[in-house]
Formats: sequence, structure tokens, C-alpha cells
Amino acid sequence: MPATAISPTRAEDYPEWYQQVVRAADLAEASPVRGCMVIKPQGYALWERMQAILDRMFKETGHVNAYFPLFIPLSYLEQEAKHVEGFAKECAVVTHHRLELGPDGRLIPTGKLEEPLVVRPTSETIIGAMYAKWIQSWRDLPVLINQWANVVRWEMRPRVFLRTTEFLWQEGHTAHATRAEAEEETRKMLEVYATFAERDLAIPVIKGPKPAGERFPGAVDTLSIEAMMQDGKALQAGTSHFLGQNFAKAQNIKFASVSGAEEFCWTTSWGVSTRLIGALIMTHSDDDGLVVPPRIAPHHAVILPISRTDEERAAVLEACRGLEASLVAASFAGEAIRVKTDARDIRGGDKVWQYVKQGVPVRIEIGPRDLAAGVASVCRRDRGTKEREAIPLAELPARLPAILAEMQQGMFERAVAFREARSVRLGSADELTRYFGRDDAGFAWVHVADDPAVAAVLDPLKVTVRCIPMDGPDEPGKCVVTGREVGRRSVLARAY
Amino acid sequence: MPATAISPTRAEDYPEWYQQVVRAADLAEASPVRGCMVIKPQGYALWERMQAILDRMFKETGHVNAYFPLFIPLSYLEQEAKHVEGFAKECAVVTHHRLELGPDGRLIPTGKLEEPLVVRPTSETIIGAMYAKWIQSWRDLPVLINQWANVVRWEMRPRVFLRTTEFLWQEGHTAHATRAEAEEETRKMLEVYATFAERDLAIPVIKGPKPAGERFPGAVDTLSIEAMMQDGKALQAGTSHFLGQNFAKAQNIKFASVSGAEEFCWTTSWGVSTRLIGALIMTHSDDDGLVVPPRIAPHHAVILPISRTDEERAAVLEACRGLEASLVAASFAGEAIRVKTDARDIRGGDKVWQYVKQGVPVRIEIGPRDLAAGVASVCRRDRGTKEREAIPLAELPARLPAILAEMQQGMFERAVAFREARSVRLGSADELTRYFGRDDAGFAWVHVADDPAVAAVLDPLKVTVRCIPMDGPDEPGKCVVTGREVGRRSVLARAY
Repeated sequence: MPATAISPTRAEDYPEWYQQVVRAADLAEASPVRGCMVIKPQGYALWERMQAILDRMFKETGHVNAYFPLFIPLSYLEQEAKHVEGFAKECAVVTHHRLELGPDGRLIPTGKLEEPLVVRPTSETIIGAMYAKWIQSWRDLPVLINQWANVVRWEMRPRVFLRTTEFLWQEGHTAHATRAEAEEETRKMLEVYATFAERDLAIPVIKGPKPAGERFPGAVDTLSIEAMMQDGKALQAGTSHFLGQNFAKAQNIKFASVSGAEEFCWTTSWGVSTRLIGALIMTHSDDDGLVVPPRIAPHHAVILPISRTDEERAAVLEACRGLEASLVAASFAGEAIRVKTDARDIRGGDKVWQYVKQGVPVRIEIGPRDLAAGVASVCRRDRGTKEREAIPLAELPARLPAILAEMQQGMFERAVAFREARSVRLGSADELTRYFGRDDAGFAWVHVADDPAVAAVLDPLKVTVRCIPMDGPDEPGKCVVTGREVGRRSVLARAY
Repeated sequence: MPATAISPTRAEDYPEWYQQVVRAADLAEASPVRGCMVIKPQGYALWERMQAILDRMFKETGHVNAYFPLFIPLSYLEQEAKHVEGFAKECAVVTHHRLELGPDGRLIPTGKLEEPLVVRPTSETIIGAMYAKWIQSWRDLPVLINQWANVVRWEMRPRVFLRTTEFLWQEGHTAHATRAEAEEETRKMLEVYATFAERDLAIPVIKGPKPAGERFPGAVDTLSIEAMMQDGKALQAGTSHFLGQNFAKAQNIKFASVSGAEEFCWTTSWGVSTRLIGALIMTHSDDDGLVVPPRIAPHHAVILPISRTDEERAAVLEACRGLEASLVAASFAGEAIRVKTDARDIRGGDKVWQYVKQGVPVRIEIGPRDLAAGVASVCRRDRGTKEREAIPLAELPARLPAILAEMQQGMFERAVAFREARSVRLGSADELTRYFGRDDAGFAWVHVADDPAVAAVLDPLKVTVRCIPMDGPDEPGKCVVTGREVGRRSVLARAY
């Protein structure tokens, strides 16, 4: 065993470390279809946890789920292309609906479609077309619908979880009678994402609007949550768009108001994707592999029986099963403790390293000596792999939830401290250039105007304005590029 | 209001009645994309309930979820076409990966793919390709994976939920070291489906193998569950395939056995789809609309406040909220009672009919007079719309679970009785022809051999052998077509 389970380490080669963490934790792998990943059971279990928590939050905020077609008629995107600059172009296009076996044993696409279909890159157009039918009166509003779905955006340089041709996501699409209500919805869903990121994923995020050039095509305002990865780069972890009446006008989504006047709806859309798994990995994991915050962990703990003889084995296993039963009856964060006993007959060291690399928060080892002393050896994934604490078996059901809560909080605080240590306030364009020339660049809080001249300075640095923090202090100052007065600093960073 | 909420009635025009029930309950509608449906929130809520219960059952039987690509390289299907007669031909084919805006404002598909991609009609080939990589040794077996996904099979004559170009489903794919284990898995998952259908959907099913001509292409054995709809036709509600080593050989899924010998795996696949929603509708609904068994109902009950004056309204609403809180604390079938209060200020009659048509199992009305008497008027969806029982408010939390249990059981028994009344035992080909000439034909239990000669007789009648019931009695007899001795009767019917 090398000094660390993952090679290279983060310091040696961060992008390759990421790939190796994904591999060591068995989360996903490339598929034979270029750009498409296979999400393996260990990775999908993380997505299922995310779905369960988010879905509950969406429902608690009044949303319902529905399902819209995978395919979008080409004419819908043509309609959008007329109204919107920068609509999605890298799309999978379906042109035929049949396969016929040729004389040489090859399959030939036949049944050419009159109108090609596009595999949805996002669903504003197809959902909007339905809303135009469904919404007649103010009584039909608001419409608050979410969809869990797969989407496709052709990727030339795919990267597992972060950028793949097909990915899984949820997309909320809402329609409202007033601008104020739609704006409130946009902010509310950003809050849902921020709460989820910080409370459940232990990923601190900065919330705020994007500058014009970084908005979703057609949006009046795009709000995002931005997280810092351990290489100092930003990752956009979720977006919430206020679409104004732009899509409603393009798609004729109208309603009769209380006064009887015909008005266009105000719409929003918001989404997070399997990209969050990439954010989770890059925020918390270390040179021994994945580290998962307890709230999102498929298993909070794993119990490992340790024995040499058959006689030992029976006694140890019995104790493990007993402990498992008592732990399942305990709860953490409002849910039953998720624990399993791994009784496979393989080398103990292999097992331990498997769970280290998979990031299970707590390992509980029970051997004959522990049993004699009435204790278990408890190892936390957020501590060194050699560190362990002997805890009386009878106390574990009460102690484990506290340990998990402490880990969850500790991981969040560590990530906040890391981000703060890698954040600076800069006062000039020169400082910006110098800062982003450093290897340890992170987030720069800078006064910049929402102006193309700013992008022209940042582009060569491969830096973007991530957002204008909503929770940042009011602090007027002059744009370091244009000299124009702005109300507060923006956050600038390199980004995934 | 006509005599019934749905027009036409089942007796007048069964296929059109089905469409109207779907519309009245707001479950789904056709989309602008030919053959693709939009599953609306009321319909999707049914699918979510099905997913939640089935997913739990899959996990309890040792399965995990994963996600595989939407796209399948054409060469994979060519490979399959060499091995398998009757593989899927009506597929959506992706040939381009980019859209470019032409000078006339039209979008043009560009970026032609070297190899076309097929949108998955089912995932045996792409999942098998991954299994071939993942499985090396007997220690890697069994692999027990399920996927929740959308699939596409081009449909010329779509019918909402029953036959649509895109539909949602789950597909289990497992690999085993021995034939016996794979066969056991095939039967076990059929049992899971049958239990779910009968216990949760209250749909009685007949389990058994299909004749050779009705098997999944490439399967050694296809087991299905068959339900009878209210027009006497059969609906295949789930299938479980024993694939033998056919797919393993075509895809080179091999493992080193305990003895070190290289062997091909034995594989299975099994699935149910949004078609189950169609089965649910056609089994239980009546001429007033949808009827949903309590276990699968998104809401077990709805509370309707009834008042004329503002003063009444406040008192009644308070009582409703209090009742809601006490009902939520009660449980049915191991889950908290799902109940909501509908306080919308619209005509009471409209509300009542909305919930009748949506099939909410129990309506609980509270008006000033009820309040004065300390009771609620309880109306069951499985009884006449005028029938109601006054139940003391304090007793409802204890009574409602019993009412729901009685409804669940009653709906199942009613469906069994219907099926038995529409089932016959026939002894000759002539009887078959006469029976399926009748308007009220249903299931015919007949001795038939698994032989193409049988299909030749049944085809003109538009009848198929649904399955050879596993739980049917051993009852040897002569095939009514070939005269060959067979061990038991098959079930023959027209089918969806």
C-alpha cells in the first residue's frame, strides 16, 4: 500500500486525482458511447440520496412532478432561435425511426422523419408549449412543476459527472401571474439549492445573480450558487432563472387576469444535475479517496467483524448483528441510521481500504478483544485512517448520531475555512492579472461593472465573474476595468 | 350533469371511455411530438407511488440501482441482430450532433455521426457490454442491477399509457454463475411483480411462461403476469425473462468459476412500465371516472369544507384542519395517512365531482350541521356517489385505516370476481371460434401445445396464448389444434 490510497495526490495532479477517486470509489465510468457515462451503483446511490432530499424540498415548497417528452420538434428550436441568442446548438438529432437489416448484415436507418427531432438539451420549449394550452385564466396560476429527467448536450471534451453528453437532472418550470411572484419563486428555489448544498452536501456556496454575458439564453436574470473546489476553481452547483415574459411571448403563454385583460405569464426555470456529485467529490475528498458527508451518505456506517478462527467468527458476527439492529433503531437528521455489516470472508485490510476509498463516514470494527471488553473500534472518515476510538457497544446507538452530526458540521466548517483562506479582495486590474497568475488562486472579490469590457480583460486570464453575491456587504466602489461606480464586489474565479 | 361523469360509458364505447377517464382525471395528454405523451402531475403521482413501492421491493430482494446511457451504438444492435430473431426495429435513430442556423432562419442538422446511435428500446446490449467488463470471477457474481429510465419504441398507433413511443419503465438486468440461480431470479422477480399488482394495485394476475412465439427475442423463457381489463381483454402487466446464456455468449460475459474454468454467465431481465397506469385505470375505473386503490393513491382522502357564510367558513375550516392533523398521525399499510384539505373557494359540487373523477378513495365533507353534530360525512369512491356515512370526528383517525383496508380488499375481490365470471374452459377449436365471436369474451382456459399450428388457428381470431398459468392445476389433456398431449391448460385471450 502506498502512503495514500489515491495516486496521484491532489497536490500532484488534481484532475487525475479526481478521475482516480471516481474509479476507486466505483462511482462511474466511461461508456462505449462517446461522452456518455455509466453511473455505477455506488455513484447512483449518491444521486438517489440527492433526489430524495431535493424532491421533498420541492414538494414542501408547493411543487409537483410531471414528465414531458424526450424529443423536441426542430421547429420549436427554430422558434426559440428567432427570439434567443445563444440557444443550445450541440444537440443529438433524430432523423429516422426504423432500422432495416441490409443484405451484408448491416443495419440501415430508414423511415426518415418529415421533421427531425432533437433530444432535449433542456425543456423550456416543449413544456412552454403545453403551458400555453393549459393556462387560460389567473385561476390556473401559478403552475409549479418539476421534472426529473435525462438531457443531452453533445460534449467534445467530456469529464465524468462534470461535463457529459447525457446527464441526469431536475428542471423546475413555473408560470406566474405577476413579475414579483416569479422573481420570488426564482429566489426561493435558489434558497432551496443553497440550503441543500450547505446543510446536506456540506458545500458552502455563494448565491447571486450572474452578469448578463453568463445568463441562460433568454433569461432576464440567472441566479446561481457557486462553490469552491479544492483546487481553488469555482463550480456552478445550481441555477435559478427568472425568464421574465420572454419565453411566454415566444410561446404565447397567456392568461385572462382578474380584470379580464389578456396578459403574458411570467416564468422561471431552475435545475441541478448529476454535476453535484462532481462538486461533492471535489469539495471533501482527500488523498485516500472519497469523503461523503453523513447526511448524503448511502450508508452512515459499516460494521466490520474481525476474526481468525471459526469460533471467534460466530461470536463476533453475532455481536455485529446485534449492534446493527440497535443502530438501525437510532436516527440521524430525522432518518433511521443506515448501517450494514460486511461479513464477506476477505482480508480485513482490503475491506477497510474499500470503505475508506468509498467514503463511508464511520467504520465500526469488532474483533474478539473488543468483544471481551464490550467495545467497538470506531474510525471516522474525516480523521486519519489510523485513528480510532473504543466506544462501549451499549453507548454506540446514542453516540453515533452525535458523531455524525459533528462530522457533518466539521466538514462544512472545513470547507468554509478552505474557501476563506483562498479568497482575496483585489483593487485593480493589475492585481487581478497577478493573482490569477498564481498557482493557488481562488476567489477574488472585485468591483467590476456588468460590461463586455470586463469580459475582454478576464477572458485571457480564463477567469469569469461567477456571481454578484447577494449576501455580500453593500460596498460601493469603482469597476477596476471601466471605472464605473458599482454597488458591491463580484466574485471572480476560474471555473469548471 | 349527465347521469354519469364520463361519456361515453364503458358499455357504450370502451376505448373512448378509457380516453375520457384519462382526460377527466387529468392524468396525461398527447404531446406535439407524435406518439409521445405528457404525463401530467395527477398521472405522474401514480407513477411515483408505483416507483416508491417497487423500488423498496427491489432493494429488499438485494438489487441496487444504476444508470446506463440513453444511446446504443448501431453496431451493438447489429451484433444482436446476428444472434436474435425479431430484435427491435422501430427505433429512434440519432444521426447528427449539431444544429446550425441556415440563412433562411431554418435549423439544419450538421455534425454527422460516423456511427448512428439508437435511442434505447431496451438496454440488454449496452448493459451487457458493461457486464462483460465488470465480471471476471465468480466472486463478482451475482450482479443484481435495476435501472429506472425512459425508453423509445416508435409507435404508429399510440394509445396513452398503453402504447407510446416514449415510456418510462424499470429494467432489471442480472448475471449469475448458474442456470438454477438465474431461473430462480426470473421467478422471484415475477413474484415481486405479482405481489405488487395484487397487493398494491388490487389487480389480480395470472402468472406463467409465454409460448415460444411470444417470448422476448433472445430469451429462453419469458414469464409474464396477465390481468383482465373490464372489456375482457388481457393486459400483460409485467415480464421477467430468463435469457439463458444467449446474451452472455453474444456479448462475451464470462467468469472464472471456483474451479478456475471460464464459463458464460446466465442472465435475466425484467421490467414494468407506465403501462401499469393503463392497467390500473381499466381494471377499477367506472362510468364516473378513475377509481384508485388506497395503497397506490397519492392521497387516501380529501377533506372538503362546506359553508355558506364567512362565519361558518372559519369554524368549518378550523375543524377540517384539526381533522387533517389527526388523520396524518394515523397510518395505513405502514405509511402515514395522505390527506389534504381543499379550501378553494369554488362551487362544492364542482369540487366533489373533481375528486370523484380523480378517484380519490375517500371524500370527507364537513359542513356546519356536521360540525354541530361532531361528525363528518364520509363518501367512499367504491360506493355510489350519493352514499355517505356520518362518522364522529373523534373516531375517524381510527376508522379511516379500516375503511381503506376494506376498500383495498374489496376492489381486489371485485376484480377477481369479474375475471372469474368472464373466464371459461373450452374443449375444442370450434368452441374457441364461437367463444371469441361473442361480445363478452374474456379468458379461455384451453389445452394447446406450444406449436406454430396453434398460432395459425388463433391469429384470425386476433387471440393469443397469454401464458401457461404456473398456479393452474395439473390437468393433462389434448391440444385442441394439434391433438398433442399437454400437461395443463393455457389462458387464451384478446390482448392490449
